[in-house]
Amino acid sequence: MASAEAGNPPPTARRTRGGADVRRAARGHPKLQQLPTITRRIPLTEVLDEEGLALIERNADTILEEIGIEFRDDEECLALWRAAGADIRGTRVRFPRGLPRSIVQRSAPRLFTQAARNPERSVVIGGNHTVFAPVYGPPFIRSLDEGRRYATIEDFRNFVKLAYMTPAIHHSGGTVCEPVDLPVNKRHLDMVYSHIRYSDKPFMGSVTHPLRAADSVEMARIVFGAEFVESNAVLINLINANSPMVWDGTMLGALKVYARANQATIVTPFILAGAMSPVTVAGTLAQVLAEVLTGTATAQLVRPGAPVVFGVFASSISMQSGAPTFGTPEPTLVLFAAAQLARRLGIPFRTGGSLCASKIPDAQAAYESAQTLLPTLLAGTNFVLHGAGWLEGGLASGYEKFVMDADQLGMMQVLAGGVDLSENGQALDAIREVGPGSHFLGCAHTQANFETAFYRSSIADNNSFEQWEAEGGLDAAQRANKVWKRLLADYEAPPIDPGVDEALVEFIAKKKAAFPDSNV
Amino acid sequence: MASAEAGNPPPTARRTRGGADVRRAARGHPKLQQLPTITRRIPLTEVLDEEGLALIERNADTILEEIGIEFRDDEECLALWRAAGADIRGTRVRFPRGLPRSIVQRSAPRLFTQAARNPERSVVIGGNHTVFAPVYGPPFIRSLDEGRRYATIEDFRNFVKLAYMTPAIHHSGGTVCEPVDLPVNKRHLDMVYSHIRYSDKPFMGSVTHPLRAADSVEMARIVFGAEFVESNAVLINLINANSPMVWDGTMLGALKVYARANQATIVTPFILAGAMSPVTVAGTLAQVLAEVLTGTATAQLVRPGAPVVFGVFASSISMQSGAPTFGTPEPTLVLFAAAQLARRLGIPFRTGGSLCASKIPDAQAAYESAQTLLPTLLAGTNFVLHGAGWLEGGLASGYEKFVMDADQLGMMQVLAGGVDLSENGQALDAIREVGPGSHFLGCAHTQANFETAFYRSSIADNNSFEQWEAEGGLDAAQRANKVWKRLLADYEAPPIDPGVDEALVEFIAKKKAAFPDSNV
Repeated sequence: MASAEAGNPPPTARRTRGGADVRRAARGHPKLQQLPTITRRIPLTEVLDEEGLALIERNADTILEEIGIEFRDDEECLALWRAAGADIRGTRVRFPRGLPRSIVQRSAPRLFTQAARNPERSVVIGGNHTVFAPVYGPPFIRSLDEGRRYATIEDFRNFVKLAYMTPAIHHSGGTVCEPVDLPVNKRHLDMVYSHIRYSDKPFMGSVTHPLRAADSVEMARIVFGAEFVESNAVLINLINANSPMVWDGTMLGALKVYARANQATIVTPFILAGAMSPVTVAGTLAQVLAEVLTGTATAQLVRPGAPVVFGVFASSISMQSGAPTFGTPEPTLVLFAAAQLARRLGIPFRTGGSLCASKIPDAQAAYESAQTLLPTLLAGTNFVLHGAGWLEGGLASGYEKFVMDADQLGMMQVLAGGVDLSENGQALDAIREVGPGSHFLGCAHTQANFETAFYRSSIADNNSFEQWEAEGGLDAAQRANKVWKRLLADYEAPPIDPGVDEALVEFIAKKKAAFPDSNV
Repeated sequence: MASAEAGNPPPTARRTRGGADVRRAARGHPKLQQLPTITRRIPLTEVLDEEGLALIERNADTILEEIGIEFRDDEECLALWRAAGADIRGTRVRFPRGLPRSIVQRSAPRLFTQAARNPERSVVIGGNHTVFAPVYGPPFIRSLDEGRRYATIEDFRNFVKLAYMTPAIHHSGGTVCEPVDLPVNKRHLDMVYSHIRYSDKPFMGSVTHPLRAADSVEMARIVFGAEFVESNAVLINLINANSPMVWDGTMLGALKVYARANQATIVTPFILAGAMSPVTVAGTLAQVLAEVLTGTATAQLVRPGAPVVFGVFASSISMQSGAPTFGTPEPTLVLFAAAQLARRLGIPFRTGGSLCASKIPDAQAAYESAQTLLPTLLAGTNFVLHGAGWLEGGLASGYEKFVMDADQLGMMQVLAGGVDLSENGQALDAIREVGPGSHFLGCAHTQANFETAFYRSSIADNNSFEQWEAEGGLDAAQRANKVWKRLLADYEAPPIDPGVDEALVEFIAKKKAAFPDSNV
């Protein structure tokens, strides 16, 4: 196992220079309510029975045995698989039935802790836990004020700050938007730094080039110490398959860097069914499983015990236009079933989020997001990327959408807690006190519980029509516009060890000076 | 059992006067695609274990034994319960532990068919089936064109027509909006007639007065024949408890009329937790169960075997303003657990729908609706009122909201079907044909399946940002505005036996002439 569920020493404490610094830092720290990793107390929703799951697993083995997977531009991976007993012809790797599964099950941890620089924000990934992270990847942003435009590093910082300020977001994420104002070959430095500096939640490393992955690990070592990083996951990193059935050199390179450093990878086929996989749920599942098995097993061949996550990003396309669609029933079935496959494999599972095709934070965006997010929770997903902010099929990070989704994440946290069956929860005395034909508004039990009884939305307007109209008749997006602006106005950076900050800034400056800017 | 799941003779066929009429009717009948009652092929989502459920049942028995239920303004019901062994003091009825449950379990059907005048539209209520019906009760309508105004009988007919035109809506519902332009004491005649005349799906009767319930039964007898009605459910009727723990004379009167006529009743505590029940989930559940047990058992005392449904409408209130809230996690937990309690009791279950507090069809409306509708399906709800059109906590029926929700209902029907594990579903040949690094867009399997592979939304815009913008940058509500107008423009009334229509019109005219208009 890469790391235990509990008992990690507080990583920043080791580097803190003294009590005075800590006290100074504490004074500057905003009193933010933050929620821990969700521990689910409700049963799982499942859509396949034992027989169906075994069928999908057999089909995945058939794909791996008969068709195989391409490992492109990476001789080392081919050599690893040859040594492990696979059949290699050119870049095509074919696997004896059950081999990748047995490699994963031999050494991959069932669950692990990703340490945050503030140990109170460390998250447990796996088991009956769920971690919410923000949107990942969009080159555009959208807000009511500015409409849609290319994202900048300023937007990136803003989304890091918003995720930091949101109690139900447990994780700072990775590419919360793509800062296209910075050169491609150096922007990862500013991105990773922003997560460290403007948040104290766990975060993700760069995967766009093996060298950028290595930079991410170096920066993590500055923050956490090299020794701590060697035996603890402090980075979790998104490795996408090039579906169908291809691993490319960039992704394999990043995967190897992270696995070698004992850092976590989320091995994720990116599927738009009908294009990158068959148009059917069962066909998509078999292909996804085959791809995940080979990616996660590769990480185990590189370093047995490196944390790996079974990821799947699966949606469909419109068969009329080819455009990606979200929140429709077929991807929901893939999501539920894939979670079951991950549990049988015995590693943590990542999928879902608040996905939508809508360009704006309207009813389409909300229907589709909710129809993705609730299944994500009920399926028992362990790590949820795109939890908040996703718009336009992932092309835009929405400011209003971010806080609207964040509100929904808070609701999911309550739902996952299940039914309180304590004596206070049963409330028999309240029913005795009130009796038939009266009401519970002022009774002792209501008085004692009213502050925490019900989830309180930060976005919804529940007032009367008349009051709502008198207050301007705003829609949810207009209210959300005020919410994110207030959050950014109230933002205060979490404390950071000045020595760590200095070392990071120095590292980045040196790196940036070492080679010219490039957008490749 | 009131009626069998299958084998009902086609009710309208009996009254048809001859082949020529039938052929004439068929020519005028639009070629509408209609979906049958959902048969769920995915497992249930449950939130309580055996122990938790038994605890709630014990607490319900304690409420019934210690506190009891008020039966107001109905001597007959008090007499029935006295004879059954309950303890009666004034209007308060206390029940020996287990008595109401044993009465229900002795005679209430586990599932039943509600016959429609078009036998193809008959629905099965109970078991692993789900039936979607439209919104019920709003005095206002809302549309983008007119904003919010009082509803009229014209609106009522429009929503009946929209429900008729919607494949995923199986049921015409009841008070799709309240036609406040008609006198209160006569409008039920026009409402019931509209369901019969403008749709051929099953519908609901009036419950606002025992005499109006009796009129509903009379009209059903004109349509289906008295003999058929005597042994088949052709009406399903919403009986609300006056929570906490009160049955009033109006509701008991309507309940008795329908039970005596062997027609179905949905016995439903209307709960805003914190006002009509305790602020906790477990407390609300125990009270709901106590109320449902006594209401459904009363129907069985009136006529053993009359179909009854375990209903619950449970939401919360804002503890700040007292306003009702929807789509929040606590009501979702109530919904899931109540479905489990209904299954243990052994009668069909009704809850949920597309509920929201939003005044307009915006993101709030959609998040809240989806967060109610998906749990409604996953819980195994058998009859879903408010499936489409609900706005503003039930105060407004929304035209745009109606078609937006209807689109979601279609998705729920697909989701309920589960994963296709046939050879075609497995798609191994497609994966073999395409192979690594290619795509599935043109492969034989995709070609063969593309028309039915994915649910096709009638509302979502999945196009590129550029195309969406070029087409006016509409939001979902603006697109929905066009959808409902097109549906109404395309509407053609289903055929009806002219003799039946004449008899209904005559009955209504006679009733209306018999006493003066009144708004009480």
